[in-house]
Amino acid sequence: MATTNNDFGRLAADVLERVRANSPLVHQITNFVVMNDTANLTLAIGALPVMAHAREEVADMVGAAGALVLNPGTLEPDWVEAMLIAGRRANELGVPIVFDPVGVGATPYRNETGARILRELRLAVIRGNSGEIGALAGAGGEVRGVESVSGVADPARVVRELAAKTGAIVAITGKRDFISDGKRVLGIDNGHEMMKSVTGTGCMSTAMIGAFVATCRNQGGVATTGREARGPEDGCLLAVASALACYGLAGEIAAAKARGPGSFRMELMDALFSLNRDSIEKGARVVEL
Amino acid sequence: MATTNNDFGRLAADVLERVRANSPLVHQITNFVVMNDTANLTLAIGALPVMAHAREEVADMVGAAGALVLNPGTLEPDWVEAMLIAGRRANELGVPIVFDPVGVGATPYRNETGARILRELRLAVIRGNSGEIGALAGAGGEVRGVESVSGVADPARVVRELAAKTGAIVAITGKRDFISDGKRVLGIDNGHEMMKSVTGTGCMSTAMIGAFVATCRNQGGVATTGREARGPEDGCLLAVASALACYGLAGEIAAAKARGPGSFRMELMDALFSLNRDSIEKGARVVEL
Amino acid sequence: MATTNNDFGRLAADVLERVRANSPLVHQITNFVVMNDTANLTLAIGALPVMAHAREEVADMVGAAGALVLNPGTLEPDWVEAMLIAGRRANELGVPIVFDPVGVGATPYRNETGARILRELRLAVIRGNSGEIGALAGAGGEVRGVESVSGVADPARVVRELAAKTGAIVAITGKRDFISDGKRVLGIDNGHEMMKSVTGTGCMSTAMIGAFVATCRNQGGVATTGREARGPEDGCLLAVASALACYGLAGEIAAAKARGPGSFRMELMDALFSLNRDSIEKGARVVEL
Repeated sequence: MATTNNDFGRLAADVLERVRANSPLVHQITNFVVMNDTANLTLAIGALPVMAHAREEVADMVGAAGALVLNPGTLEPDWVEAMLIAGRRANELGVPIVFDPVGVGATPYRNETGARILRELRLAVIRGNSGEIGALAGAGGEVRGVESVSGVADPARVVRELAAKTGAIVAITGKRDFISDGKRVLGIDNGHEMMKSVTGTGCMSTAMIGAFVATCRNQGGVATTGREARGPEDGCLLAVASALACYGLAGEIAAAKARGPGSFRMELMDALFSLNRDSIEKGARVVEL
Repeated sequence: MATTNNDFGRLAADVLERVRANSPLVHQITNFVVMNDTANLTLAIGALPVMAHAREEVADMVGAAGALVLNPGTLEPDWVEAMLIAGRRANELGVPIVFDPVGVGATPYRNETGARILRELRLAVIRGNSGEIGALAGAGGEVRGVESVSGVADPARVVRELAAKTGAIVAITGKRDFISDGKRVLGIDNGHEMMKSVTGTGCMSTAMIGAFVATCRNQGGVATTGREARGPEDGCLLAVASALACYGLAGEIAAAKARGPGSFRMELMDALFSLNRDSIEKGARVVEL
Repeated sequence: MATTNNDFGRLAADVLERVRANSPLVHQITNFVVMNDTANLTLAIGALPVMAHAREEVADMVGAAGALVLNPGTLEPDWVEAMLIAGRRANELGVPIVFDPVGVGATPYRNETGARILRELRLAVIRGNSGEIGALAGAGGEVRGVESVSGVADPARVVRELAAKTGAIVAITGKRDFISDGKRVLGIDNGHEMMKSVTGTGCMSTAMIGAFVATCRNQGGVATTGREARGPEDGCLLAVASALACYGLAGEIAAAKARGPGSFRMELMDALFSLNRDSIEKGARVVEL
């Protein structure tokens, strides 16, 4: 992976172009609050969303998907069960799973569900806020509702260690995003604080990661078949970093035009749709930590 | 029905005026992704939405409705059961049912559910994309997630035959919409490709059909009482065509102002709200096929 | 409480400032249609939303909340059960409950559910449209779907009597909002008719009340601990009136910029976010009835 912003921007633009060229299907078992937004984000960046949660069909649906996003933001037992069924099938097929531990740390039920997903599935990516990842990793952090009240002390260390332990790429998003495959740690400095005034902006970034990670399956980053272990190689680390950089950049572009969270949300979709090589190469900001 | 665009536009404007004058209640048992959008569309065109899915109340709720929309986009057994309960009661009362077979063709569970709804209920209208209607009709077409990957070869024939077989008016929507009552086939050439970049635009067109079809009950198009067979007569064929023409036209108006899918979605609601006789008479484009 | 608009505006601005300063967590068990909108409203005014409905966690989640909003707009038995579990725990902890009887009056199931919530929980606030509150109070009013078709004859009397009977502050919202604690009755004349063209504007006002009422717990208006009876004292009456005045005022500001319901909805979030002391002091309109 490149070490200058310019090189990174070029690679990130490549990934986005692959998403648009291949239109991967992103199967999302997600929460009621953000479903519409994450579906619209998925379309805006050129991928295809499908929301399906019935135990009767999730294994079939994930078979057609390029990635599976699991987001238990409004969890209940039937939905958790569906996530596990879909996840097991995804693991069999080599479909990468992106997990968003929404609100883990806030209630015992969310903690147990997060731990169970971690234990029973091989995850390709885990993304959350500092409090959620801290709670998932047993590294501290405080969550109230779905908000990170106080984050982990050393996010770079926490993502690296949780990645090394789980085999997933782990991302803590916030003012700076921290991403690790267990060895390298990247920081992304894109984004805008207006994102905190709109619900689901974290969930949207997870959906974006889903679309981007679907492309690295064919790029040598993630094994495409069988039950063999899938290691988070550079191709997928780059895909995750690219997703977060492009997403944060769209947030910056949107914020420059917005007059509040209502117009920001609208501008964000327009900005995602309009992202291009030029704006990404100029705007993506990555650091190797 | 008129055969020139100008005549058709006049009739379509008449239907919209009836919707606004009567404010029919459109009972929607629909998917989690689009509920907010279809409710807002329903209000924007002057009708009243109600979303209610509990088996404990759907039969009561549909009794107050002018139309029932069934959309199993995020189906699960309890919801399918509720659709059937509401549908049976709608059939008893002569409330027209509009069915949107979202994602039929994508999984066996969706195929079975689509077939079951077709078998157990008398539908007034069926609307889907080319892949979905093809799968429902056993006429080919490929669906990935909820997207039509490849459509049927001859949509005019498919809608006519499925209409003849089911007794429903059948519509395949796409670049050109094809609508048939089993005898005549109409083509609608309104719409804009930006609609493909926003989730739920198909579901929204189905909700719009629901509001428009509620008006043809009192126009001789659909029987209003009892269990007698309801034939798709010209009044209802016109209502469905009018809904799709008005909807597509609003999409064109919105696209002319939009800078991406976020602003398009906002402009679409404004355009639907602002549709008037003048714009419809000038903009509606229908052909008899 | 103040009796001039200027004094009231100053107090309402105080309440909003407390919301922004304290960022109370508003636990919402609400309907599928409006979840995204009420979450965005909650953030826009500076509070934190959390949607959680699983019986496995609602009692834990409400323990961290400053208010609990119960909105059975798309009710089903599991969700009603969760509302009761959360509500009982809220009563134990002194967390104020705001109840929105969506669609009560439309079906027997909604009537029974509304009556059950009234019977089994101590509510801090009840807010609905004229038909819903009329049905809940047994005072007439007609509801079709979730719309008030014909309201109660004397809203000031109905809110006062239902408040006196239940111990909750009761609000009927409409062109004029009527609010009572069982003794005093206030009228709020903010708002705009465009609100009727967007779904969930009533539900959003309830969520806003939730955030505002969370502040009066620490203001002597609502007891904060134990099972003792919580009387609707002036602090909370003011909080409810302030929420409705600020919300209606944001609607007026949004309507002045909107071109239809799509842009109105966007502008509403921007306006809520941008409300300030100056606009509230100038724009809030209250009357003592």
